Amino acid sequence: MAKIKASRNGTKKDAITKKAAALFRKKGFVASSMRELAENIGVEASSLYNHIGSKSEILQTICFKVANDFNLHIDEVEKLQEDSLAKLENLVRFHVHMMVDLFDEVYVANHEWKQLKEPYLSNFLNQRKIYEARMIQIVKDGVDEGTLKPIQPHIAVLTILSAVRGIEYWQRHKKEYGISELENDMTEQLLHGLTK
Amino acid sequence: MAKIKASRNGTKKDAITKKAAALFRKKGFVASSMRELAENIGVEASSLYNHIGSKSEILQTICFKVANDFNLHIDEVEKLQEDSLAKLENLVRFHVHMMVDLFDEVYVANHEWKQLKEPYLSNFLNQRKIYEARMIQIVKDGVDEGTLKPIQPHIAVLTILSAVRGIEYWQRHKKEYGISELENDMTEQLLHGLTK
Repeated sequence: MAKIKASRNGTKKDAITKKAAALFRKKGFVASSMRELAENIGVEASSLYNHIGSKSEILQTICFKVANDFNLHIDEVEKLQEDSLAKLENLVRFHVHMMVDLFDEVYVANHEWKQLKEPYLSNFLNQRKIYEARMIQIVKDGVDEGTLKPIQPHIAVLTILSAVRGIEYWQRHKKEYGISELENDMTEQLLHGLTK
Repeated sequence: MAKIKASRNGTKKDAITKKAAALFRKKGFVASSMRELAENIGVEASSLYNHIGSKSEILQTICFKVANDFNLHIDEVEKLQEDSLAKLENLVRFHVHMMVDLFDEVYVANHEWKQLKEPYLSNFLNQRKIYEARMIQIVKDGVDEGTLKPIQPHIAVLTILSAVRGIEYWQRHKKEYGISELENDMTEQLLHGLTK
């Protein structure tokens, strides 16, 4: 059997996580087995355990890596010397890119977080809640500044996050239009609407 | 054991379907049993079979009832003597109401259609495809008329349908704001944007 190859710019653990995210997205976390993951990588199941402790540990790695990416990004956005609208646009574009560039990982974090064990489950949910609250605050600031309409900020954030999450249904239509059209048109509609 | 009570303005089968939709939403179709459904209704499992043939039949009833509601509504919308923007607004508001008024049924149709058996599975997916194509046509007409921006119609419909679908996450926040605020703000954002 072959050895586990490290992914480019990454470790062997990164390579396993990447393959696992693809497997968990397609089959679901519960229905995926370590044996199947090993087969997908082309190694013996036993050699996986040199790099990771369990299937649950892989799910934790995926969910917390995705959370880190979003948290680090919103840290930067909050520091920008720009108005709330520009910050919001920055966030929408980042979400679109995450849904496309890290599709397997973000999909798994969105759909399979319920399978996390404690204390990771509560911790992950709490981080998501804080992230949403930070987005809501940016919308509130925009309403207060007068750049945004007096829309209920929670509804605006729900609308944005749900719309972007729907990119999972776009994957089938990739050939009709590319990522930059998707990013520009979705951002335009969510911030400035469909009407001329 | 009690008898199955017919729901108001409905048959006993309607009452069973309603309870089943709530159960399937909470536990998932696969994990739900006829015995559990009977317990929820307060009757013997055997008496359920006087009204319905199987668990699969109930799922079919739920999915095709939801499909009928959306199809009949878009039939009416297409006939309206109004511009595309008004038609689109009508559709968005209807989707919001369906997500709220028939939450269990729409949730089950959105999440559990994969569990439909053939020929229902292919038939259901085809109806959904046709429904989306009809919405896309309304957006296309709006772009051609010049009332809507030249946004890729498929992206606009994806954005609308995904955003509305996200109302499933709103259920936890019901107390913060009501359905009319949700309906008005989401419709405003999706059609006219967040900016003043």
